[in-house]
Amino acid sequence: MSFEYSDKTLDLMKRLNAFMDEHIYPNEHRFLAEVAEGDRWQPTTVIEELKTKARTAGLWNLFLPGSERGAGLTNLEYAPLCEIMGRVIWAPEVFNCSAPDTGNMEVLERYGTEAQKKQWLEPLLNGEIRSAFAMTEPEVASSDATNIACSIRRDGDEYVINGRKWWTSGANDPRCKIFIVMGKSDPDNPSRHSQQSMILVPRDTEGVNILRHLPVFGYDDAPHGHAEIVFDQVRVPASNILLGEGRGFEIAQGRLGPGRIHHCMRLIGLAERALEKMCQRSLQRVAFGKPVAAQTVTLERIAESRILIDSARLLTLKAAYMMDTVGNKIAAKEIAMIKVAAPNMACQVIDWAMQVHGAGGMTDDFGLSYAYAQARTLRLADGPDEVHRNSIGKMELAKYAGKDAIRNYMSASSSVSRS
Amino acid sequence: MSFEYSDKTLDLMKRLNAFMDEHIYPNEHRFLAEVAEGDRWQPTTVIEELKTKARTAGLWNLFLPGSERGAGLTNLEYAPLCEIMGRVIWAPEVFNCSAPDTGNMEVLERYGTEAQKKQWLEPLLNGEIRSAFAMTEPEVASSDATNIACSIRRDGDEYVINGRKWWTSGANDPRCKIFIVMGKSDPDNPSRHSQQSMILVPRDTEGVNILRHLPVFGYDDAPHGHAEIVFDQVRVPASNILLGEGRGFEIAQGRLGPGRIHHCMRLIGLAERALEKMCQRSLQRVAFGKPVAAQTVTLERIAESRILIDSARLLTLKAAYMMDTVGNKIAAKEIAMIKVAAPNMACQVIDWAMQVHGAGGMTDDFGLSYAYAQARTLRLADGPDEVHRNSIGKMELAKYAGKDAIRNYMSASSSVSRS
Amino acid sequence: MSFEYSDKTLDLMKRLNAFMDEHIYPNEHRFLAEVAEGDRWQPTTVIEELKTKARTAGLWNLFLPGSERGAGLTNLEYAPLCEIMGRVIWAPEVFNCSAPDTGNMEVLERYGTEAQKKQWLEPLLNGEIRSAFAMTEPEVASSDATNIACSIRRDGDEYVINGRKWWTSGANDPRCKIFIVMGKSDPDNPSRHSQQSMILVPRDTEGVNILRHLPVFGYDDAPHGHAEIVFDQVRVPASNILLGEGRGFEIAQGRLGPGRIHHCMRLIGLAERALEKMCQRSLQRVAFGKPVAAQTVTLERIAESRILIDSARLLTLKAAYMMDTVGNKIAAKEIAMIKVAAPNMACQVIDWAMQVHGAGGMTDDFGLSYAYAQARTLRLADGPDEVHRNSIGKMELAKYAGKDAIRNYMSASSSVSRS
Amino acid sequence: MSFEYSDKTLDLMKRLNAFMDEHIYPNEHRFLAEVAEGDRWQPTTVIEELKTKARTAGLWNLFLPGSERGAGLTNLEYAPLCEIMGRVIWAPEVFNCSAPDTGNMEVLERYGTEAQKKQWLEPLLNGEIRSAFAMTEPEVASSDATNIACSIRRDGDEYVINGRKWWTSGANDPRCKIFIVMGKSDPDNPSRHSQQSMILVPRDTEGVNILRHLPVFGYDDAPHGHAEIVFDQVRVPASNILLGEGRGFEIAQGRLGPGRIHHCMRLIGLAERALEKMCQRSLQRVAFGKPVAAQTVTLERIAESRILIDSARLLTLKAAYMMDTVGNKIAAKEIAMIKVAAPNMACQVIDWAMQVHGAGGMTDDFGLSYAYAQARTLRLADGPDEVHRNSIGKMELAKYAGKDAIRNYMSASSSVSRS
Repeated sequence: MSFEYSDKTLDLMKRLNAFMDEHIYPNEHRFLAEVAEGDRWQPTTVIEELKTKARTAGLWNLFLPGSERGAGLTNLEYAPLCEIMGRVIWAPEVFNCSAPDTGNMEVLERYGTEAQKKQWLEPLLNGEIRSAFAMTEPEVASSDATNIACSIRRDGDEYVINGRKWWTSGANDPRCKIFIVMGKSDPDNPSRHSQQSMILVPRDTEGVNILRHLPVFGYDDAPHGHAEIVFDQVRVPASNILLGEGRGFEIAQGRLGPGRIHHCMRLIGLAERALEKMCQRSLQRVAFGKPVAAQTVTLERIAESRILIDSARLLTLKAAYMMDTVGNKIAAKEIAMIKVAAPNMACQVIDWAMQVHGAGGMTDDFGLSYAYAQARTLRLADGPDEVHRNSIGKMELAKYAGKDAIRNYMSASSSVSRS
Repeated sequence: MSFEYSDKTLDLMKRLNAFMDEHIYPNEHRFLAEVAEGDRWQPTTVIEELKTKARTAGLWNLFLPGSERGAGLTNLEYAPLCEIMGRVIWAPEVFNCSAPDTGNMEVLERYGTEAQKKQWLEPLLNGEIRSAFAMTEPEVASSDATNIACSIRRDGDEYVINGRKWWTSGANDPRCKIFIVMGKSDPDNPSRHSQQSMILVPRDTEGVNILRHLPVFGYDDAPHGHAEIVFDQVRVPASNILLGEGRGFEIAQGRLGPGRIHHCMRLIGLAERALEKMCQRSLQRVAFGKPVAAQTVTLERIAESRILIDSARLLTLKAAYMMDTVGNKIAAKEIAMIKVAAPNMACQVIDWAMQVHGAGGMTDDFGLSYAYAQARTLRLADGPDEVHRNSIGKMELAKYAGKDAIRNYMSASSSVSRS
Repeated sequence: MSFEYSDKTLDLMKRLNAFMDEHIYPNEHRFLAEVAEGDRWQPTTVIEELKTKARTAGLWNLFLPGSERGAGLTNLEYAPLCEIMGRVIWAPEVFNCSAPDTGNMEVLERYGTEAQKKQWLEPLLNGEIRSAFAMTEPEVASSDATNIACSIRRDGDEYVINGRKWWTSGANDPRCKIFIVMGKSDPDNPSRHSQQSMILVPRDTEGVNILRHLPVFGYDDAPHGHAEIVFDQVRVPASNILLGEGRGFEIAQGRLGPGRIHHCMRLIGLAERALEKMCQRSLQRVAFGKPVAAQTVTLERIAESRILIDSARLLTLKAAYMMDTVGNKIAAKEIAMIKVAAPNMACQVIDWAMQVHGAGGMTDDFGLSYAYAQARTLRLADGPDEVHRNSIGKMELAKYAGKDAIRNYMSASSSVSRS
Repeated sequence: MSFEYSDKTLDLMKRLNAFMDEHIYPNEHRFLAEVAEGDRWQPTTVIEELKTKARTAGLWNLFLPGSERGAGLTNLEYAPLCEIMGRVIWAPEVFNCSAPDTGNMEVLERYGTEAQKKQWLEPLLNGEIRSAFAMTEPEVASSDATNIACSIRRDGDEYVINGRKWWTSGANDPRCKIFIVMGKSDPDNPSRHSQQSMILVPRDTEGVNILRHLPVFGYDDAPHGHAEIVFDQVRVPASNILLGEGRGFEIAQGRLGPGRIHHCMRLIGLAERALEKMCQRSLQRVAFGKPVAAQTVTLERIAESRILIDSARLLTLKAAYMMDTVGNKIAAKEIAMIKVAAPNMACQVIDWAMQVHGAGGMTDDFGLSYAYAQARTLRLADGPDEVHRNSIGKMELAKYAGKDAIRNYMSASSSVSRS
């Protein structure tokens, strides 16, 4: 188990940090102002400008392990870069490394046909268009994939899609041109994991109706946003199916692994930034005759934050290392572990940072409540804590009783196991 | 120690619950829609309509213990009513029982001159105008009252006010006509608690500049809102001083006691509502073959929520009872205790409720993320947890070492004690 | 809901505190020394001496609500006395108010025949003999009463008892003369709660074999102790059955309510004592230039301890009040709530107190690690936290779905509900 | 940062695990029985027998990084071996790798003269004698080294030692022949870290009086034990001083680094064992109709245990790696971090394991309460959590303000900083 950063990574980290210092941090205020003052749902000029700079600087498409279309980095090599970008919530897009596009590009790269790649992957890699991923549904507990109700029905040379999705992030950005939609093509298949398919749906297809943007706490996350969408008799060519009918669950499993590493590393960056702010504020703020930093209760929280952050980083690097060396499937437990650990860690660290900032911590002046909203959401996105903890627990128990035995033991309490 | 609800309270509880059922819960959607669709910063018609109904129903000005202007209820009698109103965040205003007006009316009732009462208290009691309280400052840790920098300087028959305040809630509601401003009239007074004064400043006085509205986790709390205000050479008649020069700290101490009971009881109502939603959702939502309610992890959280809520309610009722029987000063420890316990309890219960709601818990569909933002803010408003815990700790230690000894012990670490 | 202490209670509290000051605290060292130096499993002379004094002082059999054999106190009246006695672990026996005798005497008082009362209740009330309660079994999860394996079989005019019990506290005290044994008389009864019976077994009956004393952490709790016992073809007269065959579950439910109040109030006393020690030690101990009490991390813990203790006390008084006014059955949720809240509270407070005592906190010099062991055990004794939280959760959910619906919902996960 | 286990380590892990399987686990009961039945304070024959076997198997003195007297392992290479040995509390002694001898041997190896090494280090390395470390004092908060009161005064060719120590572990084992004693040789030295010296005191020196054995949660830890000792005019030759007068603090800092890695890795082994037991028990134990393992609350705890253990292991390996590569001084923060993280992690995991074992978890049948006592003690031994958290907090703050500034900031609250 070696977490040594390669020379390539060290070089990229250095250049990425320099770019953050020169172009990202100084523009944090500008980004907020652009969103606040203009049409909230138009892309900002600051990001478009910086994309050009980042691409010129060779800081572009740093993800995509094992593909020559990306930067040729392993998950372990990419992880620390992801952390750096995650220090500012909108920064990853500047480097064409932002969710959900990264996950969607990975799906297209791994499972797309040449034609699908040409039409959608290339402009995505060029940062010309954006994409969305429509999986979660408002009416069912979607962490249980067998609950998915959206229908993808073959009709001649087409598929017809009917259903309601929400949390389709980025769907209303005018640059978003393509959706990957998960639904059931064969709801009666006795194999519960062969019922689902994924299909490409261009956003301007008739019958795609964006109903509203969902707030996260009180944030609309404009201009990205999270859409609730109705698919009403939406027809697309049969060739839009990804990988093949009935293989949606398989793609979902493949897609989520790297995405979780990315989410977690970005959260670690976000938590590091919160700790930085906590330290700085506590040194500056004087209450009852001395700086807040001199209170042992502050020192304890700073210390615990450092322990939590470093633990989460090591755990995430280990998961990335395992994905690179033994594959996503064997790393399933480690991936689930970071999916639980990192968002909870970030919520705790940011909460303490807010407390040190007093009433200011609630506002947008320090970015902490917004960071909290992001971290809190990730305790639910891609499956709630509870689902992942159950998976981890079962995998741990399987050491002692075998997977089949565990499944039987659990059958009283759970009909579907999902990892 | 008797927490028996009096017949008067039981009758009011019954009528209040009936009013909530008939008029408040059915209008929750309308309130949100009015704010979303109209001019966010205008009062809603729904509240104005319901105010008339509430007053007619005799559910008006239920606070104001020990005054014939109120409903003649003790703190203990009012507390359970406050809990009921707190179940819907905007409901208290319907009964003219909302912060910060209740606290401001209490200040005017207790410390105001007859002229001040006539000019400001009467229209406030009639629900014709609203008021704001300007204490917290952005540039200093304001939980330490000796940090207050705003200047209130006597100049002939007038006072001149200069300073910057934030978290002046409700200041931009067009009905808000009067501010109570805390500042330093005698910053060099060796008695640190005689440096401050409070003064009445009509909102339309020249030099009062509202800079912006502060968001709380992305929520602007419109049409109420939280303002940042600059007082720039603001002049008011000397008769606007409250109680007398140098008595601001004394008023603050008197004002905060009942206000804390109110905040805590409202939070208990809010937490009860969140628990209700947690139970209902967990019974309806099926994942992995059974309702979420059937998972022991859900049962544990419901159980812990019930324990936390009931504990906080009993603690708050005890503090109310003590305020009624032995006075705010002797009840200082109990008041500080609920100020810590209730917001932390509410944050925990609401967080669990959000988790059971999955991604929906992040949105405004269930009101949970907004409730969380309110509860989280109250871990800072009226003094952060840490300041109150320090006060409680010192009062507890004083049993063993005497207050003077404690002050000396602490002197290395703290120059000002505040309870 | 009135928690006002009656005059009778106030008088008893005063006298009890005086007795503690005069006779108990000054003898804490002597008790430890007697146990350490003599035959660990013989009663101490200090307790026997003090029993006489306590009886003379009218501080005897303070429990037994609703019976003229006791002090005539309600649960609410007795609770604060129980707290005072609980401040020293061995003190309750001095007042003939110690577990498991109190619970056993209540069983005899409520469910015993006149002959049973004469033979066993009278000497118990006189403090001449002691008793034990044999319910928990090593081989099954005994919190689920349907798991009980011990057999109570009718054979002519006798019952024959076969089984293995552990945690039969006090069984090896030479004064212990009588066991109440729970077992199954009708294991095939379709009503799962009619399978059990309770029966009186004199300790010197043939076939009663005490195997060993169970340590709690490293404490043997001598001379009281916790026995593992084999009942091997033990025969007692049929008249020894309590209340009637098949009514064991009913008695258990009746027995556990008051016992839980007692346990919880004693724990509150124990926690108060730990907080006292935490305060005193932190004022005396100097580290890094100032007393530990001056660290805000210490103040925070003292404050949280005060909040936790006062919350648990109010919650317990409320449960006692409900038992007195609406009965054990309706108070089931409140009783379960304190059974969870009080031991967890005590563990936390004592743990913090230990930490302030440094290495000394681990030893027996301050009594804290022993107190921790007691409190920790009560997270398991009379049912583990998890079982009680499940019961509370189900009772809470029943508000929304009805008890039958809840039972069906849960049936996938749980076959027996127990409160 | 590479945590890859070297081939040497992998080979030793394999052999060590085989030895544990063959010789240690099967003798767990025998060890307990020997201690229980014989003279508690005599060495057990089981350990002496196994020592021979372990030495023959080449599993001997695996510690001592950077010395040819040890196995030539780095801290990182030794760490996973330490984890394996830590799975059984008495196992490390079998491999001559047990505290406090390892730390004492390191002190002699690094700082001893040739004569000191010949006399004490050689028999220690041979497992012929044992040693103790006398630093902590009952009367002062010894985590602040400037509090140390024991006097080491030069008198001609001798030093005279006077003082009282406790927690001198292993002092009463008859094989223990030598103490390393920390005291003040120059209490008035203005440099607070030059006041202390360490000196070798043979245990049979006149004036060394062992007063008693200190229990840990009721456990006497026989035959090892923790002694309270009075040094009463104890005279030793001047040549017994270690490294030189005034260099005691320096040695203490050097000694504690590796020792903390060892403690933490052993705790990780102990926690792994507890998790194993938790899994196994939860699979076997049926309550309310299904195995405890099928409850989601159990799955959650198993999952959180896995996350906590893996995090602590990675954090500890990182600290070991840093000690090997950049030295103890630069690794000070990482060492302090694991000193906080590992014992708290172990307490939590073991506590959950106890809860799954029901009343059995309190006894010695499963070894869990004893494991808890060990882990809990390590929240205090070698400095309480709070002292380490303060150090970590200050080191973190120093990134923003410089060490001198931090010292000044803190000076109001703390006169001595210790890392």
